[in-house]
Amino acid sequence: MSGFPDLATDAVLKQSVPVPEHFQEVKGVDYSKPESRNARASDLIDSMKTMGFQGSSLAKACEIIDEMRTWRGKHISELAEHERKGEFDENGYQKTTIFMGYTSNLISSGLRDTLRFLVQHKMVSAIVASAGGIEEDLIKCLAPTYMGDFALPGKQLRDDGMNRIGNLIVPNDNYCKFEEWIVPVLDKMLEEQEAFAVKNGANALDADVPFWTPSKVIDRLGQEINDESSVLYWAHKNQIPIFCPALTDGSIGDMLFFHTFKASPKQLRIDIVQDIRRINSLSMEASRAGMLILGGGLIKHHICNACLMRNGADYAVYINTGQEFDGSDAGARPDEAVSWGKIKADAKSVKVFADVSLVLPLIVAATFAKE
Amino acid sequence: MSGFPDLATDAVLKQSVPVPEHFQEVKGVDYSKPESRNARASDLIDSMKTMGFQGSSLAKACEIIDEMRTWRGKHISELAEHERKGEFDENGYQKTTIFMGYTSNLISSGLRDTLRFLVQHKMVSAIVASAGGIEEDLIKCLAPTYMGDFALPGKQLRDDGMNRIGNLIVPNDNYCKFEEWIVPVLDKMLEEQEAFAVKNGANALDADVPFWTPSKVIDRLGQEINDESSVLYWAHKNQIPIFCPALTDGSIGDMLFFHTFKASPKQLRIDIVQDIRRINSLSMEASRAGMLILGGGLIKHHICNACLMRNGADYAVYINTGQEFDGSDAGARPDEAVSWGKIKADAKSVKVFADVSLVLPLIVAATFAKE
Amino acid sequence: MSGFPDLATDAVLKQSVPVPEHFQEVKGVDYSKPESRNARASDLIDSMKTMGFQGSSLAKACEIIDEMRTWRGKHISELAEHERKGEFDENGYQKTTIFMGYTSNLISSGLRDTLRFLVQHKMVSAIVASAGGIEEDLIKCLAPTYMGDFALPGKQLRDDGMNRIGNLIVPNDNYCKFEEWIVPVLDKMLEEQEAFAVKNGANALDADVPFWTPSKVIDRLGQEINDESSVLYWAHKNQIPIFCPALTDGSIGDMLFFHTFKASPKQLRIDIVQDIRRINSLSMEASRAGMLILGGGLIKHHICNACLMRNGADYAVYINTGQEFDGSDAGARPDEAVSWGKIKADAKSVKVFADVSLVLPLIVAATFAKE
Amino acid sequence: MSGFPDLATDAVLKQSVPVPEHFQEVKGVDYSKPESRNARASDLIDSMKTMGFQGSSLAKACEIIDEMRTWRGKHISELAEHERKGEFDENGYQKTTIFMGYTSNLISSGLRDTLRFLVQHKMVSAIVASAGGIEEDLIKCLAPTYMGDFALPGKQLRDDGMNRIGNLIVPNDNYCKFEEWIVPVLDKMLEEQEAFAVKNGANALDADVPFWTPSKVIDRLGQEINDESSVLYWAHKNQIPIFCPALTDGSIGDMLFFHTFKASPKQLRIDIVQDIRRINSLSMEASRAGMLILGGGLIKHHICNACLMRNGADYAVYINTGQEFDGSDAGARPDEAVSWGKIKADAKSVKVFADVSLVLPLIVAATFAKE
Repeated sequence: MSGFPDLATDAVLKQSVPVPEHFQEVKGVDYSKPESRNARASDLIDSMKTMGFQGSSLAKACEIIDEMRTWRGKHISELAEHERKGEFDENGYQKTTIFMGYTSNLISSGLRDTLRFLVQHKMVSAIVASAGGIEEDLIKCLAPTYMGDFALPGKQLRDDGMNRIGNLIVPNDNYCKFEEWIVPVLDKMLEEQEAFAVKNGANALDADVPFWTPSKVIDRLGQEINDESSVLYWAHKNQIPIFCPALTDGSIGDMLFFHTFKASPKQLRIDIVQDIRRINSLSMEASRAGMLILGGGLIKHHICNACLMRNGADYAVYINTGQEFDGSDAGARPDEAVSWGKIKADAKSVKVFADVSLVLPLIVAATFAKE
Repeated sequence: MSGFPDLATDAVLKQSVPVPEHFQEVKGVDYSKPESRNARASDLIDSMKTMGFQGSSLAKACEIIDEMRTWRGKHISELAEHERKGEFDENGYQKTTIFMGYTSNLISSGLRDTLRFLVQHKMVSAIVASAGGIEEDLIKCLAPTYMGDFALPGKQLRDDGMNRIGNLIVPNDNYCKFEEWIVPVLDKMLEEQEAFAVKNGANALDADVPFWTPSKVIDRLGQEINDESSVLYWAHKNQIPIFCPALTDGSIGDMLFFHTFKASPKQLRIDIVQDIRRINSLSMEASRAGMLILGGGLIKHHICNACLMRNGADYAVYINTGQEFDGSDAGARPDEAVSWGKIKADAKSVKVFADVSLVLPLIVAATFAKE
Repeated sequence: MSGFPDLATDAVLKQSVPVPEHFQEVKGVDYSKPESRNARASDLIDSMKTMGFQGSSLAKACEIIDEMRTWRGKHISELAEHERKGEFDENGYQKTTIFMGYTSNLISSGLRDTLRFLVQHKMVSAIVASAGGIEEDLIKCLAPTYMGDFALPGKQLRDDGMNRIGNLIVPNDNYCKFEEWIVPVLDKMLEEQEAFAVKNGANALDADVPFWTPSKVIDRLGQEINDESSVLYWAHKNQIPIFCPALTDGSIGDMLFFHTFKASPKQLRIDIVQDIRRINSLSMEASRAGMLILGGGLIKHHICNACLMRNGADYAVYINTGQEFDGSDAGARPDEAVSWGKIKADAKSVKVFADVSLVLPLIVAATFAKE
Repeated sequence: MSGFPDLATDAVLKQSVPVPEHFQEVKGVDYSKPESRNARASDLIDSMKTMGFQGSSLAKACEIIDEMRTWRGKHISELAEHERKGEFDENGYQKTTIFMGYTSNLISSGLRDTLRFLVQHKMVSAIVASAGGIEEDLIKCLAPTYMGDFALPGKQLRDDGMNRIGNLIVPNDNYCKFEEWIVPVLDKMLEEQEAFAVKNGANALDADVPFWTPSKVIDRLGQEINDESSVLYWAHKNQIPIFCPALTDGSIGDMLFFHTFKASPKQLRIDIVQDIRRINSLSMEASRAGMLILGGGLIKHHICNACLMRNGADYAVYINTGQEFDGSDAGARPDEAVSWGKIKADAKSVKVFADVSLVLPLIVAATFAKE
């Protein structure tokens, strides 16, 4: 036809190669099935496998979590003495060492109950948290956090002594209560440090002696709080180490700061070198290593870095809102960690681009809390 | 104590005003309850009400959706003749006119089944979609879309005739099939237009005569496709108008472009003025108006703008990933629409910051598909 | 050494292949140079080429823009008659057809002056805008927009008749002034339509007759406003078409809606089919095609789709805040458009992840407004 | 007029209150001025004050930075002995204590030159960095970082020993070189620790004795590297403390980990308690405190928390890509910090939503490097 746009039709109607057989059709929920009504978590997740976008990433995250938590290797009796490292299940079979990281705000939110559930039932092996992820767990044993709104004006809140965390409110009195609770604990910790220094003298700084580290302080706080609603309590009870190299970056840091005046000329010391050895050793000893990273920043990098010590994690699930375009580690996709040897090239990994509070309840319901 | 940092302790240990009685405590899932295992959608949502962050926004979205879909006003018999407008339920009671907007990619994803479910069961009153949201629904009746990966390289895909939409793949052959299907339909539509022009002559452009508009074209395509998997099919069947002012912005536009050569010197005309009157009238006639906006851009603005015609929607749920910092309408929070009179100041509204594919299956399971 | 972690040291101290010669070192601004003080745009951009992250993407955007705006092909005298299409410079050499897209909010912001500068000096060939991108340009000729704040509460603003766009405020009176200005224009346009219908009768809908389309309406509005501060004015003057398929999606739509009542039984008709032919033809005729896409949504898709008609643009610069993880076209990287044939596989392309208002002044200062 | 939509016209044409006199008109670059051509940084920033969206936020950031860097208080001779704290300029007048925080990736990028410029010329008072922000500065003295691409596949990169950071590449050999460089330094540091322990015996842990802390380690590394391209070198030279509580979270941590095996049974100890006292004291002593926060996560929280010790910073500029919707501290707006007493209610503050690499060169050119 005269004037017919061949250039355009050739471009628009370009033929495809045949669709490869392994291609999976996109499809969603089948609402003709009765189980689609008020669906159970696992049915929802099943129907999201071929949803596309983050829906299918969520389903993949559940699949990877189920693999990492149910993998079993050899029985301990089949292993030579020096191979008897890492995690074993109650029947003596090797299982995945799961490193879970979470940021402070998740403990402030209602997800604290979900994180505690995982620790209480020994579903994770080690934790990395930011400082707020430690202290807010303890403070919630003393007084509640409340629902608020992202738009509440800061000046009025400060006048009222109400601190805002996103759409949550923590009365400042909670921190006063925390101060009352923690000062005697810090006093005791300082006493023990001093007794130990007197005993060890010039060797007080050496490797095999006890010495406060963030993970030891956290374990002690978990013991002292003695409250079943607490993540730290169960971590202490179940001997799940919680790492927090920047433990001073929050209210505990404020209290330690004040305590340096109270204790002067004595001073509590918290060493971070011993803890990097501890977390790296867990990674090296693991039969398999899995990462469950909830949020970004330090808690993400620290777990990835530990997994470099074993030449990469075997499983990785990232859930956060970070974007890669600014070159931040927070926003880096799992494939960036592959380039560093932090995730194995053949590992199963996924990133779900979401606020954790939006998806973790569903994920846990469909995996760790399925049965 | 000498040197004690009063400035700091005063700031850190500032007292709060008493916590107001109406404050709600943050709490999450209670895992001691048996229903927390592989939880049902409605139990998950219930436990997210006091979760904080987007978790509680999701719960609020469900609450608003349940209100908008279950609200009932007066019986039609109580209304004067001129008041008998808007939507009524099967028993004759006023109900909310629900405007649902969705972007093209949702139809490409597995959410198409969810959107179709809502239309099939008359759970929404009117739809605004982008052009891809029309044509991809039709094309999926002809050939499937497949799961892919965000990182597949574009050059190889183009060589293979495989088009990528995020982590989905649409073989270009699908568009060839679409061309075969739609050309005869366009031919018929042009014939009808010509017949009508002959009949009406100089009046062919006037108000009360039929004339192709995007919503009429879409209705006709829904009739022609005659496929129960299709959103358009059910929209036609249930007389739910689908608006798409930029209907030419996609494959249908390509086909219309080609058709101008085929049809020359005749030409299909699609008028957008009549449709703005149609959608605005729906808004003005509604007893109550609800917005369910899935994504951003035109589909969001168009529904909001229609609701300005009634001085504001009564309910608004936004779900998208847009951010307000760039001043885009896509990223604007509901409160920006309040300033314009597009949402009533006392309306119930929420924005969930999420990819729709991540949350809509859960939302629908806990609301529209609860029973 | 006993206990030395070989597994870890092997992983951490893995050797690299030699660095390829073409690798470019990362480096930034050299502050020892005097031109680093209060630097000029082009010096800043030069120093950002090896900055990394979005800094280097910005520099690449400038490089591509400079290429697309300075490329020259054959002289018109070397071309056969049927090849004499597309854009030519004042000396008769082929140049790039530049499609610029922008969203409504950019016109609301101070970027309007920058966009007008580009149109006034014929630096772009065609424009795609959203409806607000048309009307806000006109309204600003009638009354100003003001600086506001993202946090101003919606209810108070509505009570005061102040509309918020991000951190900007548009008094609602501006829309009243717009109504007064546009109604007589719509009246005249309807008259002309009617005269034309009377003259053409049953042929009034056919291809070669004049008929209102969004681009024709916009051209007329640019003529009527007759104000040198206006983008539309210069577009009319310089015969740069502005496309806006969803022209009814905003205040113009409101006015057209009201006008249907005023004009009844007559009615203005605005056809979108003719415009898709017009923009696609521009793309097909272009010697080279460049895309400068400021924002996301329809304006991005529409330009990309037009460039498919020529089997891909030769240059593409995207600037927006969209993310790809939700599968939206708004957030799609240029490589997704390559898979569709909308950008050539060997084209130069870049996406800058940024609010346009943050970077466009610098970009234009270093490129279009360098000399 | 019969059928005329009064409801709609009333809503659309609602009148405004009179525009308050203090309202500022939105306007942008005036291209009729010669200085708009290849504009200087300060001219660009001036024209962005009324740009709207992030353009005006950027201009506000420059305004606040200029205020914080040029503020001068009393002369030291006017102050009582106990008031002679905080920062003074070369003429003896009080000036703002500026806390600058940056994330690791900025040092990896070309911004390192900008950060070094600020430190070299004593334009900031104290720094908080993440671990990578320390080690990458040192490593760049040993070998370069290269430009790469966000899409380079991780497996191939790992095979080649090339580590990816966004669109940058660091050959793994760089880390091998770093190991060679740092091990002798760690050896010496351990020797000094041991000598000190022998000397102080049971008092080795007490407050006033020297003891390694992150800031002391960093100062020593700056001294040892002795390279004028280095941020740490100039920080050492100019006695600007660099805080990094999680100093072990990166390559330095890897090296410290390996060193625990080499040194056993001795062990380096790095105490974080002394550093929290040090940074908090700086905040308390400051005449005025300003925050310049580049990125999110720990470096943001740590500076804000230190400023709580003085009941709030007087100036705050945040630049990052974090969003508040997930309740993260990274994404929190300045107004959230106001609620905590970390920023004064009457402080000047702004957040610029941007990748730092995109805007910092322009900001510094228009402020710190204007003259």
